[in-house]
Amino acid sequence: MTPRPRPHLILPLLFVFAFPSPASADEGQWPPEALATLGEARWGELSSRGLELTARDLWDGEGGGLLSAVVGLSGCTGALVSEEGLFLTNHHCAFSAIQLASTPEKNYLRDGFVARTRAEEVEARGGAGQVRVLSRLLDVTDRVRGPKSAFAKAKTDTARYDAVERAKKEIVAECEKTPDRRCAVAAFEDGRTFRLMEQVEFRDVRLVYAPPRGVGDFGGEEDNFRWPRHAGDFSILRVYVSPDGKPAPHSRENVPYRPKRWLKVAPKGVAEGDVVMIAGYPGRTQRYLTPSAVRNLEKWFYPLRSRTFSELIAILEAEGKKDPDTALRVASAVRSYGNGETNARGQIEGLARNGVAARAEVEAKELAEFLAARKDLPVEWAAAPAELERVLAADRAVQDRRFFLEEIERLGSYLGSALSSVRRAEERRKPDLEREAGYQDRDLDRARQREKDLTRSIAPSAAREALAHLVAKAQAAAGGSPVLAFDEAFGKGAAADAIAAKLAAMDAATALADEKVRLANVDATAAALAASDDPYVKLAVALHPDLAALRAARKETDGALLVWRPRYLSALEALRRSKGRAIYPDANSTLRVSFATVKGYSPREAVTFTPRTSLKGVLEKERGAEPFETPKKVLDAARAADFGPWADPLLGSVPVGFLTDGDTTGGNSGSPAMNGRGEVVGLNFDRVWENVAGDFGWSPERSRNVNVDLRYALWMMDRVDGAGALLKELLPER
Amino acid sequence: MTPRPRPHLILPLLFVFAFPSPASADEGQWPPEALATLGEARWGELSSRGLELTARDLWDGEGGGLLSAVVGLSGCTGALVSEEGLFLTNHHCAFSAIQLASTPEKNYLRDGFVARTRAEEVEARGGAGQVRVLSRLLDVTDRVRGPKSAFAKAKTDTARYDAVERAKKEIVAECEKTPDRRCAVAAFEDGRTFRLMEQVEFRDVRLVYAPPRGVGDFGGEEDNFRWPRHAGDFSILRVYVSPDGKPAPHSRENVPYRPKRWLKVAPKGVAEGDVVMIAGYPGRTQRYLTPSAVRNLEKWFYPLRSRTFSELIAILEAEGKKDPDTALRVASAVRSYGNGETNARGQIEGLARNGVAARAEVEAKELAEFLAARKDLPVEWAAAPAELERVLAADRAVQDRRFFLEEIERLGSYLGSALSSVRRAEERRKPDLEREAGYQDRDLDRARQREKDLTRSIAPSAAREALAHLVAKAQAAAGGSPVLAFDEAFGKGAAADAIAAKLAAMDAATALADEKVRLANVDATAAALAASDDPYVKLAVALHPDLAALRAARKETDGALLVWRPRYLSALEALRRSKGRAIYPDANSTLRVSFATVKGYSPREAVTFTPRTSLKGVLEKERGAEPFETPKKVLDAARAADFGPWADPLLGSVPVGFLTDGDTTGGNSGSPAMNGRGEVVGLNFDRVWENVAGDFGWSPERSRNVNVDLRYALWMMDRVDGAGALLKELLPER
Repeated sequence: MTPRPRPHLILPLLFVFAFPSPASADEGQWPPEALATLGEARWGELSSRGLELTARDLWDGEGGGLLSAVVGLSGCTGALVSEEGLFLTNHHCAFSAIQLASTPEKNYLRDGFVARTRAEEVEARGGAGQVRVLSRLLDVTDRVRGPKSAFAKAKTDTARYDAVERAKKEIVAECEKTPDRRCAVAAFEDGRTFRLMEQVEFRDVRLVYAPPRGVGDFGGEEDNFRWPRHAGDFSILRVYVSPDGKPAPHSRENVPYRPKRWLKVAPKGVAEGDVVMIAGYPGRTQRYLTPSAVRNLEKWFYPLRSRTFSELIAILEAEGKKDPDTALRVASAVRSYGNGETNARGQIEGLARNGVAARAEVEAKELAEFLAARKDLPVEWAAAPAELERVLAADRAVQDRRFFLEEIERLGSYLGSALSSVRRAEERRKPDLEREAGYQDRDLDRARQREKDLTRSIAPSAAREALAHLVAKAQAAAGGSPVLAFDEAFGKGAAADAIAAKLAAMDAATALADEKVRLANVDATAAALAASDDPYVKLAVALHPDLAALRAARKETDGALLVWRPRYLSALEALRRSKGRAIYPDANSTLRVSFATVKGYSPREAVTFTPRTSLKGVLEKERGAEPFETPKKVLDAARAADFGPWADPLLGSVPVGFLTDGDTTGGNSGSPAMNGRGEVVGLNFDRVWENVAGDFGWSPERSRNVNVDLRYALWMMDRVDGAGALLKELLPER
Repeated sequence: MTPRPRPHLILPLLFVFAFPSPASADEGQWPPEALATLGEARWGELSSRGLELTARDLWDGEGGGLLSAVVGLSGCTGALVSEEGLFLTNHHCAFSAIQLASTPEKNYLRDGFVARTRAEEVEARGGAGQVRVLSRLLDVTDRVRGPKSAFAKAKTDTARYDAVERAKKEIVAECEKTPDRRCAVAAFEDGRTFRLMEQVEFRDVRLVYAPPRGVGDFGGEEDNFRWPRHAGDFSILRVYVSPDGKPAPHSRENVPYRPKRWLKVAPKGVAEGDVVMIAGYPGRTQRYLTPSAVRNLEKWFYPLRSRTFSELIAILEAEGKKDPDTALRVASAVRSYGNGETNARGQIEGLARNGVAARAEVEAKELAEFLAARKDLPVEWAAAPAELERVLAADRAVQDRRFFLEEIERLGSYLGSALSSVRRAEERRKPDLEREAGYQDRDLDRARQREKDLTRSIAPSAAREALAHLVAKAQAAAGGSPVLAFDEAFGKGAAADAIAAKLAAMDAATALADEKVRLANVDATAAALAASDDPYVKLAVALHPDLAALRAARKETDGALLVWRPRYLSALEALRRSKGRAIYPDANSTLRVSFATVKGYSPREAVTFTPRTSLKGVLEKERGAEPFETPKKVLDAARAADFGPWADPLLGSVPVGFLTDGDTTGGNSGSPAMNGRGEVVGLNFDRVWENVAGDFGWSPERSRNVNVDLRYALWMMDRVDGAGALLKELLPER
């Protein structure tokens, strides 16, 4: 059916990808330029499964190919699907945008949103408000850590870390001299190689279509990470550009973006057994951890995260119950903590069940024997396991307190805003290129946007209670001495109640409730902030040294890891190659594609999951109460079997979800699932519970990702919302 | 394979059992004497599925046949399985017996129990302490409600109720003149017919074998009503008789009972698709309710029960956390409320999902049309639907308050004990035969036993908090005026806290903590109790008139139902026969047998359950924490794959549970599941969640009962506990 692809790119620094058994054939998240190196046997196998494309069809090495229609959003992925810049992503990826566009009167979160004309399309703020299209990928390892680099000459771990960061920033700064470019240097294989990813960023994005939350988030936390699934987790947005076709900030006179490539929508969907490609920006996997690192995740990190997020959710929800406006404001944070909490429980369960630590232990023993026997290998490789243990053990001593302090910094609160200003002001003392990532001039727009978003999302009483809780926990946690600034502000060993009372007084006195003040603080000097008598700014200034020290310690750790992790991975690669076992680069927020099959699984003894769901299952789950509360218009159409052309003959109803064995992780949300011709058949939006710990090891039996069938979206637009013009734009040939 | 049975019994008053479609072939809980009337086609079909027995093999009409080895326990069923009186039942049916035999030092509940010699067998108290073997079944309709009966002559509903109760008691009293007989007159078809069930009661029962709770109740409430299931819900007890072979109270010189019939144990178990019979004492089904009665269950009764039981569980558990002895004492009540609560939620969900009210509505409309068209039918039939509505509407007016008062009476507390004494004393004013069921002289032994059991099971602080909660709820509930006695004792509108404080003072003053005092009260006269200055007795005396009035109202309702329900059912039967639809008698705590198949199901879209589980699944679920905490000795043997001859070749492990599509309900717990030769292959112990509302309608797709595979018990005895002698007694031919 398909000509074999010609390898046209040789990447000597990439791992050699070995496929020891058909069982793990779909393992791996492939960088675009690695596709051409997969080998003829692999492409032949994919072609026999129905793939009609070549490596070059997907990625031509110069920013072209189908994958260039796969766009990056903050923490998510999207897919351009029309010549006028429409793109698809998940409802949960556009959640903040929908929330920020909603008011108690026009509640798009509850009721959904349909723009019937271009004029009705509303500005998307929050994470879905910037969209990035990949334009270039370039290996920059030599410049970052080659023999002549500052890294090679550095004498301390901190200096090594700084050298790499500096080199990355220089490369990024050069790259971003081209207007509207967003660039990033990504570490592959924990820093053994580095690649520059150049993207074009579009900043005028508008919401075009969103289903009601009762569809988009049907099942809520109760179904999160579960199968069978019945959420219509899709939304449609549009990229706008200036009248001369350039990326531009939101403006009335902007016009729809006309992308070079976009994906066709397949009106006929998928069937069980079909080959599918899932392309997107997976955030992070860690499949080559040492045994002690796995145990630390299983026994310390995820349990603490689960507990803390549960506590924060309870606090935010209790405040939300007191007031509908607060409820709307905390919704996004509750959702995000909820997702993190459920994920953490899944990781704990999955790590235990998959025996990840035990398997790492076995491989660590094999590695020790292998290194002892192979005296020809570099001595640094042999030293790597013990050196890694030393570095990680030191880091664990402070991890408890750091955990809480970092959660405090992340909290959407006045203190969070003040901490960010103080840190930015401190960083501003240095030349731009030496500043920490996120605190350079290039990050200013985003910082300002965050302050604007805070105006709409902050719920002061909820933020106060959550902050008080985290402060009390931080002070009680092990790891260094209690933070002096907190002791001074709230009293030694103060309980959360007492802290919250003091925070209430600070809320009454602060000027940070005023967006203008916060925006001014984004540009304020360290001296100006140090002289401020705003209670939150004062606290942030007092906290700064402690937080800076924590960051310095982390830098030292990371510098050491930059030395030892690549050596460890090199040793592991040699071991695995000697045994014929697969090894491939961990996900790192760069564009990847995963080959997969529409396929069910058995989650546990006596239970079999088939891979597709439909409106039948929506009606089965419907309770008339959250999280299983479908809007009436959808229920009516479903009960009336008003399916139009969107029903699947085998299901006898409109398809809603499907499972594939794609290799995905966080960041893949919104990734298009494409059929063998590269047409969109669905959007990835989750993994199954048994696959949450898949970040630490892929399994052919349990690694399943959850997709929404695009026919559900098409049916909603056609039969429920009568969004004919939109449907025509998505399916022009229909 | 098997000769056709000859119909040898005609029961003209029983429904004619019509089987309109193979899909519902396994619907129905058959009275023993109805087996012979099932028809040749049905027996042929069962024979073709592997049944090697005839109706007469199961029940010979004179108290003989395999079914005579199926014994009744309080609320449960058991199966005699050895010539020396061993019987099997569920762990949860022997739960009280195990709990009452346990102390903090010898915790059989936690650790399990193995009697290695007869001398080590311990007395079983509680529900498993009396065992009843069926000896005779006799139609007594004519005597209860025939043309010459007091019922036929009665002028009021209350008189009708009393007439039926009186007739039943007379029949029972005559029957019980034979020593050691326990007799009951059961209403079939809501009182259209009545049958006398005569049983021999054995009162010396001893605990022989119980697995640890971590096996017997593996999964706890979390798995309750769920599939896949991995509980080893089995226990073994033995019936003892006097040296001359007669039933007798517990005594050292008693000897093992030698039953006429016992069931063989099948060492080879079952496979998917096998035919299975489940025999036992199903308590109650209500498959012919009117639409409004269904809605009242769905919208009022089960929601209130779920809420109230949840509250009571929280109260008891909170008290249990304060003190290990209290925890042990409340365990049985927590378990029982937990079961009831989960059941209630299942009923709500199942009634909605199965559309029971909607289906009843459809049939009610058909019935109205049918009755309007068929003028030849009795006018009372035509009047029945409206008359039933009238009767039930009146009853609903008081149902809220009655619900809470009845829960108060049921509570294991000093007030419960006092209420029972006062009611007994009041009843004692009447001749024995006019007293209410449960308050006759024949019930005295059981009343005394309950007072003895209370000594071991009461946790005063927990009982106080639970009682305070229920009293506050009762007083706030709709339905008549608040109970004056409570207002006087605790103050008008007192909150639960205030009530609990007063109860604490009453606890300090009461003499009812003394078992001897409570036992004396069982025999006390109404005058003596009225003169008592014990605070609980005084409260019980003051409450009595209110409770008596509630009971009188209920009698009136029940008398009216005795008139109208049989007419309604007759009309319904005529309708169904005209449409070729099945109709069969509801369960009523009499012996029944259900024919079934080992069979999985699909609980919801995209999920398939296969019908068998094994030790593999136990290891999968194991968490090292309740309710998934398997004792180490079991885990070790399972992990070592020390299966002996007990592994199932298809499962590759020791089988643990299996599903069948048997028609079961509460009371069927402990029912033997028998293979086509009548050998025990397992014990029924639960239904699946999707079948909880099966009491109101059987479904071939979802009606599944959960059984423990007997090979799990045999493996435990053999490989884990080394109980060789016991194993030899169960499998003498091995």
